[in-house]
Amino acid sequence: MSLLVVGSVALDSVETPFGKRDDVLGGSATYFSSAASLLTQVTVVGVVGDDFPLAQLDFLRRRGVDLDALESVRGKTFRWKGRYGFDLNAPETLDTQLNVFERFSPKLSPQARKAERIFLGNIDPELQMRVLDQAERPRLVCADTMNYWISSRRPQLLKLLPRVDVLMVNDGEVRQLAGESNVLKAAQAVQRLGAKSVVVKRGEYGALLVTSEHNFFAPAFPLADVRDPTGAGDSFAGGFLGLLDRLDAAGPTSLRQATVMGCTIASFTVEEFSVDRLRDLDLGQVRRRFEAFRQLVHFDELPDHVC
Amino acid sequence: MSLLVVGSVALDSVETPFGKRDDVLGGSATYFSSAASLLTQVTVVGVVGDDFPLAQLDFLRRRGVDLDALESVRGKTFRWKGRYGFDLNAPETLDTQLNVFERFSPKLSPQARKAERIFLGNIDPELQMRVLDQAERPRLVCADTMNYWISSRRPQLLKLLPRVDVLMVNDGEVRQLAGESNVLKAAQAVQRLGAKSVVVKRGEYGALLVTSEHNFFAPAFPLADVRDPTGAGDSFAGGFLGLLDRLDAAGPTSLRQATVMGCTIASFTVEEFSVDRLRDLDLGQVRRRFEAFRQLVHFDELPDHVC
Repeated sequence: MSLLVVGSVALDSVETPFGKRDDVLGGSATYFSSAASLLTQVTVVGVVGDDFPLAQLDFLRRRGVDLDALESVRGKTFRWKGRYGFDLNAPETLDTQLNVFERFSPKLSPQARKAERIFLGNIDPELQMRVLDQAERPRLVCADTMNYWISSRRPQLLKLLPRVDVLMVNDGEVRQLAGESNVLKAAQAVQRLGAKSVVVKRGEYGALLVTSEHNFFAPAFPLADVRDPTGAGDSFAGGFLGLLDRLDAAGPTSLRQATVMGCTIASFTVEEFSVDRLRDLDLGQVRRRFEAFRQLVHFDELPDHVC
Repeated sequence: MSLLVVGSVALDSVETPFGKRDDVLGGSATYFSSAASLLTQVTVVGVVGDDFPLAQLDFLRRRGVDLDALESVRGKTFRWKGRYGFDLNAPETLDTQLNVFERFSPKLSPQARKAERIFLGNIDPELQMRVLDQAERPRLVCADTMNYWISSRRPQLLKLLPRVDVLMVNDGEVRQLAGESNVLKAAQAVQRLGAKSVVVKRGEYGALLVTSEHNFFAPAFPLADVRDPTGAGDSFAGGFLGLLDRLDAAGPTSLRQATVMGCTIASFTVEEFSVDRLRDLDLGQVRRRFEAFRQLVHFDELPDHVC
């Protein structure tokens, strides 16, 4: 099994009502690989500047993450600065500096081209396509995108969708992409645009999986302490694809478990800033929370006499 | 088994992106009894004016709802006018006329005093208390409230809470009542204020049940067509208490099923304006959607080798 992620490796400065961190590890590929590496072997394709503290990725190396295709080039690393209010929903973006990411063109090594599962993090759909063009025989392709690409790169995105098995977007993005306010109809419209399945990420409310055969909903785990929601979506994707790669499966049963695994790992991510909660997380803790998810949503059939 | 509801019986004028209705059946007791009467025998305590089209309640009478304690007095019926935007979340209230509701003081008949389960719809906590003072031996008391009472009648509400088994409120209300932004912590704080359990209604996202022993989450059923969300909360309460009364139970298994039954019936309510979808609903349809809920949230345990 082999899982490839292409996306940003960034330095984030984040403020929430529960604290403030400057220049901490961030970026979609960072969150994704921190999550997925708990479950499987991950290869990261991305770029950082010469200001990037590479030693901070040692915990990923120790988990077997292949960082050889993480280019280190002259210049400054991608930086994002944001602030969350008390509702901890969408952050206010205070600053985005693409820096070395601006001229990023993903290059896959001969080994990376053979990846069986690919996560296309939230980057220009043109670059996402360039990754797929280099891949030899991916069995599952999963992509994220955002409002900016949906409006500014729509033709490229529409060309990409038929090559995507699972599109992962949030409520607003699926509505924007489909031009439809009802989330279920919007997801179905995105399927008609070519994506086989759609995961609608609903932040603190959970995730809805819409496939051609079934719908599945997993709630976000109710947490008493959420410190920083940054990276919840990318670590959801990491848990989702990490489990599918570990199971080497993509049937309905596995897709449901993968959705819950995504929510499970995302629920750890938001308990601390940056990827801090994922650094020392072990599979025993993950399994226990996965089980707690079952307890959270389980209910029995009605007795026959009831109706 | 016997279930009592006290609340408003109103005439609503509602506008959503999908249509407009004037002076249609509304009010918490109307929605509650339309839902609960699918499952059990309901008694309504409330008041209407002499302008109220009583014949429109015939469908409730045919289902065995006891309307003898619905007073009809001189004056105009309680009216509410609201408008929803495309997100179909919180409505903009355009007009509220309490009319005959302003001088409403609930009076329970000797029979009604013996009710085993009581739903205190969203009215002045002082009136809610007056109902409890007349009740002889309720086995389960469930209450709704709102931002207006939380701020203007806080002492009365705090006096009521220790007599409430299940408080049903939305996200914003539980946060306001507890003075705590985290929903789980807020629900736990409300338990410390005296309510045994709390159901947090999360609109299009579902409902979270917090008891002293367990948490349970039921999503809202993903619907392609939602026309009018008015009454979703009260028909949730009707499904919830209706099932508990039918099962004559209040243990963890039943509370979970009741939460799903609440979501089930609420999901029908919002498909049409007013109580229109509930008029001809039958238990077969209810059971099938309850089963569809199980399909929606069911997932298997992880295989042992996974983690």
